[in-house]
Amino acid sequence: MLTVSAYAATAPDKPLEKTAIERRDLGPLDILIEIRFAGICHSDIHTVRNEWGGTRYPVVPGHEIAGIVAEVGSEVTRHRVGDRVGVGCFVDSCGTCAPCVAGEEQYCANRVTGTYNSVDRDGRVTQGGYSTHIVVTERFVVSIPDALALDAAAPLLCAGITLYSPLRHWNAGPGKRVAIVGMGGLGHVGVKIAHALGAEVTVLSQSLSKQEDGLRFGADHYRATSDPAVFKELRGSFDLILNTVSVNLDIDAYLSMLALDGTLVLLGLPEKPMTVRGFSLAGNRRSLAGSNVGGIRETQEMLDFCAEHGISAEIDVIPADKINEAYDRVLRSDVRYRFVVDASTF
Amino acid sequence: MLTVSAYAATAPDKPLEKTAIERRDLGPLDILIEIRFAGICHSDIHTVRNEWGGTRYPVVPGHEIAGIVAEVGSEVTRHRVGDRVGVGCFVDSCGTCAPCVAGEEQYCANRVTGTYNSVDRDGRVTQGGYSTHIVVTERFVVSIPDALALDAAAPLLCAGITLYSPLRHWNAGPGKRVAIVGMGGLGHVGVKIAHALGAEVTVLSQSLSKQEDGLRFGADHYRATSDPAVFKELRGSFDLILNTVSVNLDIDAYLSMLALDGTLVLLGLPEKPMTVRGFSLAGNRRSLAGSNVGGIRETQEMLDFCAEHGISAEIDVIPADKINEAYDRVLRSDVRYRFVVDASTF
Repeated sequence: MLTVSAYAATAPDKPLEKTAIERRDLGPLDILIEIRFAGICHSDIHTVRNEWGGTRYPVVPGHEIAGIVAEVGSEVTRHRVGDRVGVGCFVDSCGTCAPCVAGEEQYCANRVTGTYNSVDRDGRVTQGGYSTHIVVTERFVVSIPDALALDAAAPLLCAGITLYSPLRHWNAGPGKRVAIVGMGGLGHVGVKIAHALGAEVTVLSQSLSKQEDGLRFGADHYRATSDPAVFKELRGSFDLILNTVSVNLDIDAYLSMLALDGTLVLLGLPEKPMTVRGFSLAGNRRSLAGSNVGGIRETQEMLDFCAEHGISAEIDVIPADKINEAYDRVLRSDVRYRFVVDASTF
Repeated sequence: MLTVSAYAATAPDKPLEKTAIERRDLGPLDILIEIRFAGICHSDIHTVRNEWGGTRYPVVPGHEIAGIVAEVGSEVTRHRVGDRVGVGCFVDSCGTCAPCVAGEEQYCANRVTGTYNSVDRDGRVTQGGYSTHIVVTERFVVSIPDALALDAAAPLLCAGITLYSPLRHWNAGPGKRVAIVGMGGLGHVGVKIAHALGAEVTVLSQSLSKQEDGLRFGADHYRATSDPAVFKELRGSFDLILNTVSVNLDIDAYLSMLALDGTLVLLGLPEKPMTVRGFSLAGNRRSLAGSNVGGIRETQEMLDFCAEHGISAEIDVIPADKINEAYDRVLRSDVRYRFVVDASTF
């Protein structure tokens, strides 16, 4: 066992604190990663505060991990010591079910193993990236291209793939009208990727406060949803709407902006059930869909795409002792656009 | 103007009664149809009782119309006097918007004209098929192949296309696992069509009372949803679920039965909004979608497909003075499987 430094929460209402955790000894297919940066995702906060239920304390969050390979198991072939690598939301899956075989490990029929707050094969609860080191089986470790800085690449491991996967799945590209709801950690990366894919991109944000940034990231249009006239004006005008906001929105109002065969995809998951009218879906043969991050092969594809197009997250690098303050700022939307923790401070 | 016999409702709580209505004089593209049979659809009842709101009284329902061409306008080219023809849920659309040009008139951006309770181009409210005659522009009149009896073909004009269109749109066919929720007027036709398309078909009905029929119509499996174990057992096992039931179901429970990338399509529209949990959609990248009948070109394709595969509705032909009783029986699910009114009795 390797004892490493980490930041953990011990209860829903307690701040995260410095602690020591154990990482398993390297198995033949395992990789020991020296973590350099870990992004702060809204899911970390949901889990720490037990807002989705089921949190096992103490919990070390963090599933946007960028680092350097420090050691490899005897049968590892995919990465070498010194490689720049990343780990996202998952660290294992059965590998044999239909979704796994299709490279969609996130939908593993036998339950994918989350990077934290999941039970691993050895029966231990997984602990995430707010730490100096992590041990992950090589199948769940991706390469970070040289063109991407490790700090700005970290958020791509969750925010990036969470947007890239549905954009590709629902064929965002030239001639497609894509709306991104929310200009936060997820949304701002979505704007960059959707633009790079060739789609016509509209940001739907509560206000116009980030309009200048949005247009700079590649949005063609930027509209404030605080104005009810916007919904009427944009009625039937999008092929795809990606909702990155994890609060309960007026789903019917957003559905009304979809054109024939359009899809509204939920990426931020609200705690409470949504209400939807049947007529909102029957008109224009609309769909309301969900999407959960993306598979490992697609995550690598996303990183390569981002490197090729010069895309990474807009970040604010902080030391570990600022995590609790950063959580509060995320909840106030007071971050442009993703906090990333410098792992040397854990 | 042509004065013709019809059955109309004058208020939400009144029975339908015999009346006389006027049909417009034939324009150059109009067809006068001598109606032979008119199916009774649950939508007729929703409209008569103003359950969806907006009913204009008096209303003559009926949008499953089969008859014979009695007279044609001077520029009609698609049909001749004596032809066997049908009219479904729509009698006009703008013809120029993107959906209309794509043959999806039901999603006309300028509002499709319903066969009844809609405002026609001339400003008059449309009146439906519970009548001896109707005048319809030729673009909305389809041919009924000789292989189909007019009485059993009538319900195909709504129930048939309402199931055929989503089955085709979501690629029901060999290797696809399709569930049909509800074994009523819509569902029983859906079973026949899905089977003919080559899909593996499961009926999900409240009880097993119609199991023998379901298997005879082509279902591979027949399960009772009154047994909660069914949902657990069938978890993740369908590619497509078509819900023909117009009451509020536990949507999350039905979504849980979808496999990766599966879609639950709502065909029966409940009056009240549904509640859906975000997690139900994010798991397996599921979609909840709506579908509204089908276009005219696809309706013709459906009739030809049904003729080729010997598919028509199971019907109970009644005289006009039994309509009110039939409505009550439809609401009690006491019909196998569709009432069709003999138009000679209007």
